[in-house]
Amino acid sequence: MGRRVIVIGGDAAGASAASQAKKRQPELDVVMFERGRATSYSACGIPYWIGGTVGSEAELIARSPDEHRAAGIDVRLRTEVTSIELDRRVVLWRDVQGGGTGAEPFDELVYAAGSVPMRPQVPGMGAAGVYGVQTLDDGAALRAELDSGRVRNVVVVGGGYIGLEIAEACRIRGLQVTVVDRSATPVGTFDPDIGAFIADAVRGVGIDLVLSDEVVAVQTNSHGRARAVVTASGRELPADLVVLGLGVRPNVGLAQQAGIPLGTSGGIAVDVRMRTTVDGVWAAGDCVESRHRLSSQPVVVALGTHANKQGRVAGINIGGGYATFPGVIGTAITKVCDLEVARTGLSSQEALAAGYSFVTASVDSTTKAGYFPGSQPIRVKMIAERRSGRLLGAQVVGRQAAAKRIDALAVCIWNEMTVDQILSLDLAYAPPFAPVWDPVLIAARKAFEAVEADVDHL
Amino acid sequence: MGRRVIVIGGDAAGASAASQAKKRQPELDVVMFERGRATSYSACGIPYWIGGTVGSEAELIARSPDEHRAAGIDVRLRTEVTSIELDRRVVLWRDVQGGGTGAEPFDELVYAAGSVPMRPQVPGMGAAGVYGVQTLDDGAALRAELDSGRVRNVVVVGGGYIGLEIAEACRIRGLQVTVVDRSATPVGTFDPDIGAFIADAVRGVGIDLVLSDEVVAVQTNSHGRARAVVTASGRELPADLVVLGLGVRPNVGLAQQAGIPLGTSGGIAVDVRMRTTVDGVWAAGDCVESRHRLSSQPVVVALGTHANKQGRVAGINIGGGYATFPGVIGTAITKVCDLEVARTGLSSQEALAAGYSFVTASVDSTTKAGYFPGSQPIRVKMIAERRSGRLLGAQVVGRQAAAKRIDALAVCIWNEMTVDQILSLDLAYAPPFAPVWDPVLIAARKAFEAVEADVDHL
Repeated sequence: MGRRVIVIGGDAAGASAASQAKKRQPELDVVMFERGRATSYSACGIPYWIGGTVGSEAELIARSPDEHRAAGIDVRLRTEVTSIELDRRVVLWRDVQGGGTGAEPFDELVYAAGSVPMRPQVPGMGAAGVYGVQTLDDGAALRAELDSGRVRNVVVVGGGYIGLEIAEACRIRGLQVTVVDRSATPVGTFDPDIGAFIADAVRGVGIDLVLSDEVVAVQTNSHGRARAVVTASGRELPADLVVLGLGVRPNVGLAQQAGIPLGTSGGIAVDVRMRTTVDGVWAAGDCVESRHRLSSQPVVVALGTHANKQGRVAGINIGGGYATFPGVIGTAITKVCDLEVARTGLSSQEALAAGYSFVTASVDSTTKAGYFPGSQPIRVKMIAERRSGRLLGAQVVGRQAAAKRIDALAVCIWNEMTVDQILSLDLAYAPPFAPVWDPVLIAARKAFEAVEADVDHL
Repeated sequence: MGRRVIVIGGDAAGASAASQAKKRQPELDVVMFERGRATSYSACGIPYWIGGTVGSEAELIARSPDEHRAAGIDVRLRTEVTSIELDRRVVLWRDVQGGGTGAEPFDELVYAAGSVPMRPQVPGMGAAGVYGVQTLDDGAALRAELDSGRVRNVVVVGGGYIGLEIAEACRIRGLQVTVVDRSATPVGTFDPDIGAFIADAVRGVGIDLVLSDEVVAVQTNSHGRARAVVTASGRELPADLVVLGLGVRPNVGLAQQAGIPLGTSGGIAVDVRMRTTVDGVWAAGDCVESRHRLSSQPVVVALGTHANKQGRVAGINIGGGYATFPGVIGTAITKVCDLEVARTGLSSQEALAAGYSFVTASVDSTTKAGYFPGSQPIRVKMIAERRSGRLLGAQVVGRQAAAKRIDALAVCIWNEMTVDQILSLDLAYAPPFAPVWDPVLIAARKAFEAVEADVDHL
């Protein structure tokens, strides 16, 4: 029998690691444990499935258990790893449905247990009718609730990416939806001026937005089911259904119990090759911490694209190759109703927290030449370091074909470009795609002027 | 009287230079000569105006003569500079309509005379009914022809960007259109496999595409007007209207006569501050040569975005500031019917010519997550240097929201990134915007595999 690799978690990170390792070294004996009933699915697609934009669960599955098996991976569905024993180098498992248990030895272990939704520690959060949106099973349960016809009022706790996506999905299904968020504008990872556009878009489709407030209790009916949500300011919001949209935290309980060290961010500490500090133990995906290339701080960013990359890196290394994950810069994108928003690098608040001194510049332009039919408004905001002019962060908000422009800026930040370097870039121009000065270039010009004006006043 | 700046040419480059110089140093006496009747217009928008996508000529004008005058610039419309006398530091001019002439002294001169369409040296090219599409006046003349109702058959000579845009414009207007191009696929700056997609799109809207052939004569009727086009292979194509779409060459005649040196590419030689080798004489826009940052060769690239940047740089420097134009990397984008295509860096042929040894990789993916409604096919092709893996060029072809992805790759090339660095980039991911592995990242992965496989076989 070959060297034995146990993978905990069969979604993006785990399945990528398993696939790469097996592909590189077919003699490896790869066993992948998955608590749910599916592998390699798009968790990010769940809100769209709930809202009906995506027709079926099956469409969310990139690679089924049988496909993984055909590639030689021993997939154990509905099987939860309950303990990792590092000394004996075994994992203990339990069949979630049948209740059977067992042990499985390993030479290499990949910990890819993902994340769990944040759940405020307030009364009633455990009630029936309160849902996270983390797994395919969560999605199926939420869909069943909505299909049942008994839901009228939905309260979404937290106005982050997932919170707003779910709110929109419920609104598309004709429900009364309220989003409660602690900040003054939704999606707190954006600067408030960009967040204000998001708030307008959300309200524009008839979603109630309760800001600068937070949920302090979920009230239940006589059957123990959610009935209403109470907020700190005293609002009582009717709620047949409560959805957690506060974001996630890394699912590290099992690792902690086993003695696999965490980093200061709360995620599992790994090096660039996705090795934990325990020999032969790797970790990848939502449960690990990554280095933020601008703040140099460890951060936990739960995002499918990172999970896939990290899983691939772990798998290549386990399979005898060499690969690294060089960190993140905080790029994110979302569609809020018909508004597109994206960010990369640091927000103003994050730049302050990281100790940077900076100037900002915003420009309003159009996605195509102003005279071209279908041209849409776009705002680009830049955050540039004082004196050096280095681009620290950027945010884009607009309609159709606006937000993906963030990628060019992400590459600028990755390469530590200054705004005056950026304004000379050879970006693509033709009237159906951009004004003759692309909004990105105009923003760089304005940011450069702000950097220059600031230096003049030193 | 202040220092006197004469600007030859009132479109993108000239007007930008004039505006910047005057803004920075209001005491400058800036005179701008323009042979046509408009300033600061979008030449790139002319095909869309001809086709009716853009409603009126006025929409193409970014800044009218009166707006420039309000900013303190002395605009002389319909006035052609006929000679530059460097010793006496005067330009001689002629009123195009009235015929009056005069001389104007200068301290600084900006030469921004743009480009002229390439015209094959074959019989009949000077006939009535043969048009370039360079200036607003060309556009107006073409529109008048089409509005007259006497045109049925159009032959476009050359299947480059402008050629295809004009062909589509004429097709939209219900005409029978044939494009004749020397290459085996249209838009020869793309690799043939990408060009094949363009050919399909062009034919898909009912445009005839005659490839690997060229025009050898324009036949005229008894009124001296174009009647048909004859090609090298012996085709005789009926043509009431012939449009030149072979591209342009720098309009340097006046500079040459004056003794302002050209570079080896045929454009005016300038340094990064847009200074010619003659003291106090600047040049910008379609008439200058730029450095290609990958081939290190001088090239002439006629594109509005470069003209605007170069004009700005010249104007800032004339106004006492400091700015540079660091060169180009060959980024270009166009919409061919409903197909979007873009390129950056070197094509395979250009990379060969520049002496690079390289591998290529192409991937077919989707613009959004595959399961997301509206997801469209996209192909990304990469050209990477052997051994080093440095990205030398990229081409993108696809439908809605595909082609602007080229910008991220342009920034990668600008920063001399290798394909293995690119595959780790933190690009924006959410299902409405990309698969979990963005097509750009998948292409980088595949290109990296090609680089690795190539090294293995050394």
